[in-house]
Amino acid sequence: MSGPEILERARRLVEPAMVAAVDGLCGELGLPARYHLGWAEADGSPSTVGAGKGLRPALAVLSAEAVGSPGEVAVPGAVAVELVHNFSLIHDDIIDGDLERRHRATVWAAFGTDDAIISGDALHNLAFQVLLGEPTPERVAATARLARATSAMLAGQAADMAFDDLPVVSLDDCLAMEADKTGALLGCAASIGAVLAGAAQTTVDALDSFGRELGLAFQAVDDVLGIWGDPAMTGKAAGNDLRERKKSMPVAVVLTGGSGGAEDLAAIYDQPGDLSDGDVARAAGIIEAAGGRERTDFEAASRLESALASLGALEIPAEVDAEIRGLARFVVERSF
Amino acid sequence: MSGPEILERARRLVEPAMVAAVDGLCGELGLPARYHLGWAEADGSPSTVGAGKGLRPALAVLSAEAVGSPGEVAVPGAVAVELVHNFSLIHDDIIDGDLERRHRATVWAAFGTDDAIISGDALHNLAFQVLLGEPTPERVAATARLARATSAMLAGQAADMAFDDLPVVSLDDCLAMEADKTGALLGCAASIGAVLAGAAQTTVDALDSFGRELGLAFQAVDDVLGIWGDPAMTGKAAGNDLRERKKSMPVAVVLTGGSGGAEDLAAIYDQPGDLSDGDVARAAGIIEAAGGRERTDFEAASRLESALASLGALEIPAEVDAEIRGLARFVVERSF
Repeated sequence: MSGPEILERARRLVEPAMVAAVDGLCGELGLPARYHLGWAEADGSPSTVGAGKGLRPALAVLSAEAVGSPGEVAVPGAVAVELVHNFSLIHDDIIDGDLERRHRATVWAAFGTDDAIISGDALHNLAFQVLLGEPTPERVAATARLARATSAMLAGQAADMAFDDLPVVSLDDCLAMEADKTGALLGCAASIGAVLAGAAQTTVDALDSFGRELGLAFQAVDDVLGIWGDPAMTGKAAGNDLRERKKSMPVAVVLTGGSGGAEDLAAIYDQPGDLSDGDVARAAGIIEAAGGRERTDFEAASRLESALASLGALEIPAEVDAEIRGLARFVVERSF
Repeated sequence: MSGPEILERARRLVEPAMVAAVDGLCGELGLPARYHLGWAEADGSPSTVGAGKGLRPALAVLSAEAVGSPGEVAVPGAVAVELVHNFSLIHDDIIDGDLERRHRATVWAAFGTDDAIISGDALHNLAFQVLLGEPTPERVAATARLARATSAMLAGQAADMAFDDLPVVSLDDCLAMEADKTGALLGCAASIGAVLAGAAQTTVDALDSFGRELGLAFQAVDDVLGIWGDPAMTGKAAGNDLRERKKSMPVAVVLTGGSGGAEDLAAIYDQPGDLSDGDVARAAGIIEAAGGRERTDFEAASRLESALASLGALEIPAEVDAEIRGLARFVVERSF
């Protein structure tokens, strides 16, 4: 099965429960949520643009199958993780001031900040309601893990916000922040199906580690694309991360790398006002020359390798193993 | 024991666990939270202004004692409910654009909207982490109830926001909204100690109903004070709710009461721009003449009576029963 086929199979399995959960929200909370998920337009009419790629639900389903259970077992976990992920996107878009996501107005841009805050809160809370809907020991364990992962995610988001006020951030700082912001929830997604299937702790830990490392690999690729990605593919302007003066991995590598590039790059970032296209192109050149791109590509490759190594110790059915590895490579190798 | 003494006793019991929970947040998330709770100034220096009155933790503690268990049993529930309450205050202050709470700048006013969003999210999530810290059946049941109550609270807040866009709201609409926005979490607070003590479902339900009705009584009093309260006591300008064109209970009574007051009041609310002191005084007079104040006072009294009646069916130790009833009267009879 190809990456898109694996994602589509998981979507078909998880989406009905996801729709049922969100349908339980009252109108005022439900519409911004359904709009964000691509099921409705802002005026309430149906939409078929659809939600994001559904990486987390797919990982959740595969993690149940990896321990020999049917994918159905993972569904409440898949829904809960996806709800937390989407709550965080809705709030992050307010915080980052982003006007567009997936080529549509963000929730706050379409409905206002107030509705975006409270509908995000509702999705956050709904995740716990869904997962504790039947309080089996497995679902309780999954809920506790989700709460911990969400806590880490929020700490990572706060650390990312704090980076804006720091003159310099190291690659290790970036990786620690992303391990929380992106890695924790991906680790939870990649293990929650196994938790719900009652798998052994060592198996759960290995799957969590797989998801966490995959998250870092994915983020490293994302950081490269944020500077050198094709706007037609990323949906963002060329050099977008530089324009926003982000301290992403390639930037961090150069800023703390001790090369001449550090001062030149800092000088560009320190300029007042918007950066020109020339500034952005020059910054990208400095980073590439100082090895920031290569180092980040290396990080992506080694984190993917580490993620796949985590799977090596497990006895995963061959077909499922191939799907997990295929999906991991797919999400890292493509602009996602 | 007097009302303030009961609150103080519960605070001493619950605050150490509350501090320990919030201390687990990273610095960026923890400071706005500790500032909001009155433990820190915005610059991080210690503060002794303290948190709110702590009604919810006190109800939680009393609900454990009501079923013959030590108050300590209620502590994780008391902390979790108080965390949810404070998360909602931090987000509500953003949504309402309120600059001050308890005579200090609100979190968003002191730290910015972004930090207020994410530190509120962190408190929301922390509530579930604290309660599921030890996954006993009682704590799992308490967590599921808290998630449901929080869901209702958010739906109530959304309904309140939607009221702004409606020309007319009835008293029943107001009460239904407040049953969700205020009643659900107070019901959860007033029963969570009993849940953690493993009490019978009928007992838990009666305590929940007590808290829910108490919440409506409290809100009715609050709505009267929002128009006729003494600014020195309420900390808000005289007629504050009218100035903000709120559709509170006294207003709703008049708007849908079919009296001549309805049109006059609607005419004042429909004026463009800020309402003058004269407009506010005239609106208050119209509402009082049309019976809006009396009807809301009656609602407060009958809800308090209904709350206390819920306790009647239970075999609560006499001393605890006296404290619960005393606290209920205290919070309804005082401007709180």
